[in-house]
Amino acid sequence: MTPGERELLLARAYLLRVAEPPALGLTRLIAEVGPVGAARLVRTGEAPPETSGETDARGDLWRPEEDLASAESVGARLVTPEHDEWPSWAFNAFDLAVARGHHHLVGPLALWVRGEARLADLAERAVSIVGARAATDYGECVAGELANNLVQHGITVVSGAAYGIDGAAHRGALAGDGPTVAFLACGIDIGYPAGHRLLLDHVAKSGAVVSEYPPGTSAARHRFLVRNRLIAGFSDGTVVVEAGARSGSRNTAATARTLGRVVMAMPGPVTSAMSVGCHALLREQEADLVTRVAEVIESIGRFGTDLAAEPKVARRPTDDLDPETLRVFDALPLRGGRSPEEVARDSGVPLNRVRALLPTLELARLAERHPEGWRCARPPRPAPNKPNKSPRAGTMAPATPARPPPLPSAGAGIRS
Amino acid sequence: MTPGERELLLARAYLLRVAEPPALGLTRLIAEVGPVGAARLVRTGEAPPETSGETDARGDLWRPEEDLASAESVGARLVTPEHDEWPSWAFNAFDLAVARGHHHLVGPLALWVRGEARLADLAERAVSIVGARAATDYGECVAGELANNLVQHGITVVSGAAYGIDGAAHRGALAGDGPTVAFLACGIDIGYPAGHRLLLDHVAKSGAVVSEYPPGTSAARHRFLVRNRLIAGFSDGTVVVEAGARSGSRNTAATARTLGRVVMAMPGPVTSAMSVGCHALLREQEADLVTRVAEVIESIGRFGTDLAAEPKVARRPTDDLDPETLRVFDALPLRGGRSPEEVARDSGVPLNRVRALLPTLELARLAERHPEGWRCARPPRPAPNKPNKSPRAGTMAPATPARPPPLPSAGAGIRS
Repeated sequence: MTPGERELLLARAYLLRVAEPPALGLTRLIAEVGPVGAARLVRTGEAPPETSGETDARGDLWRPEEDLASAESVGARLVTPEHDEWPSWAFNAFDLAVARGHHHLVGPLALWVRGEARLADLAERAVSIVGARAATDYGECVAGELANNLVQHGITVVSGAAYGIDGAAHRGALAGDGPTVAFLACGIDIGYPAGHRLLLDHVAKSGAVVSEYPPGTSAARHRFLVRNRLIAGFSDGTVVVEAGARSGSRNTAATARTLGRVVMAMPGPVTSAMSVGCHALLREQEADLVTRVAEVIESIGRFGTDLAAEPKVARRPTDDLDPETLRVFDALPLRGGRSPEEVARDSGVPLNRVRALLPTLELARLAERHPEGWRCARPPRPAPNKPNKSPRAGTMAPATPARPPPLPSAGAGIRS
Repeated sequence: MTPGERELLLARAYLLRVAEPPALGLTRLIAEVGPVGAARLVRTGEAPPETSGETDARGDLWRPEEDLASAESVGARLVTPEHDEWPSWAFNAFDLAVARGHHHLVGPLALWVRGEARLADLAERAVSIVGARAATDYGECVAGELANNLVQHGITVVSGAAYGIDGAAHRGALAGDGPTVAFLACGIDIGYPAGHRLLLDHVAKSGAVVSEYPPGTSAARHRFLVRNRLIAGFSDGTVVVEAGARSGSRNTAATARTLGRVVMAMPGPVTSAMSVGCHALLREQEADLVTRVAEVIESIGRFGTDLAAEPKVARRPTDDLDPETLRVFDALPLRGGRSPEEVARDSGVPLNRVRALLPTLELARLAERHPEGWRCARPPRPAPNKPNKSPRAGTMAPATPARPPPLPSAGAGIRS
């Protein structure tokens, strides 16, 4: 690392500590004078008023060396927008949201990261799974299974490491051999919640544990809400699995929508209080209903190429009959036989049509001749399912990739 | 009954027997020459070719007296478009569908009805509940509860008397003291399915059992599909509760949509094969998701007046805090005390704002003074829920009734 790179890293570490995210004023100052310049202005109390409201309370906390050391002691590093692995393409959504006036959706100044994988690679194709802490067995089961199936399709599973759905999603992804990413609402060195410390170690090995809070920061309610924007922004889409009537997951869903991400929800029994939030999202058409990985991939996917296959159903030999022929078929007895005249009367189909249709049914092995007339043939086994495109297929635009390949970051300085 | 009225009734009974519904050609002939004239032309083999294809197979079956007697023997009567109780307003949807080219959605020529209630009254505000025969306990339970709640809101519950969801809907309505209506795919005198004969007796007492098939007609597959249009057309909306991947209920839903009716579906566990059809309808946005009677009423209801109330959730005293105040509150310790300077540092809120916000929190009984500084006050009990309008409320048009009051039928002749 060159002295210049080190200076940038120290500046970013300091700026992460002095402003509680989201920090729009500080972000704008950095855009104007660069991170080193911004750090100098904040430290000397010369920051413009727009920034000083965010930094005044902690501006004198110059301890970037200590923060970097604390992070290193738990195997974490600081990843900044100057690094190649910065997920620039995914985080571009934050800039667009701010430009549209959503100031609380400003992106992170940098991220503390524990794990070997490159952030940009993990964000390449990612889906977040969020939901209730007080999840039911049903919710944990379907969240875990979905996560497991997502990683087997090469999709990173993103969540927030909480008890309930979050934990089930991380565990399901790990059982499928990852990768999975956890965004924390506390410092990277804080094992929160305590019961998930071991889980977080596994998440770090599989993908990454990530936080924008300086080491030592404790989890707090408002930080969960602020953290949720990172989960939403890092992912192509967010699946809500179980959410009560008031639920932080609906906040993540709203953020994902504002960031232009796909919002999905899994339904559950209408008798379950833990599905009320999901059903509300679906009823208000704020989310796509998903029940399995193919539908998630269809919802987030490249239009026209990632359509979910229709569930396989056994086809019946009578499925392709037109209504008139079906009426004739339905009028045939199972035993004995019936004359064409009787079939015409019972089906209401004119006799000359009945006479034409009975041999057709015979050719299809659906009818057979009998001394007393005609009857049903013993049904053959159902034919294998025909390939069947979703009804959405007809309206699809030509295939375009959902994301262009990641660009090297344009910022000056550090190359890892 | 005048001789002219009797002649009309015999003509309609005959026409119901000679053509398997739906019978567009015959309907057009009746519109042109009236039912008595149409009956004469069919009987003498002089019907135009458009009609004769529908009537040739059974044209010689002149037995309206016998059919009326068979019906009377099971307590049924023939209701025709010439009767005041004909649900003209509801069935108007069939004429509109035919005009748009949906020829299989032509309305019934008349209806065999068992039950004391007037059809037009029963159709005044009606919701159909349809679903799988092989329903789960969950499906039958929620269908029955929804039906029960619908009739308690003065809404007729319509279904098809089959095992599974249909039966649960009728029973739920009966338990709530009706009214409920069953449309049959067989003759009015055929107790089908056999295990529901007693149930059909109760349905007739509460509302009506209805069929467009002549007495003695047996149930057949194509008749279920044709019958489904009556269930859909008679109701303001159709709720699908449990449907497999291939299900007749999806046929009813598609018909309801074509007829301009509201289509709704109840979700269930994604692990249940019996909810696959409902989830497909919801994912393709072909149905509104409903979980309780208030949402059904909102979906079918008069815009702007029948909005479902948001589910009641306990409010927390911190719900109304702005983000900055919440950050200050979150930085307060539960025990001991913390100085405003410490609170400023921990929350990232500037000290002068912290000094202004702490007394505000004290007034709201959320913070209290302590020898060492400030701390959380013991939380008061949650306040009662505030009235809360659905987010849809803002976009509503001024109240207009979903249906005008029923008109007396314009046809000549019989008045009951």
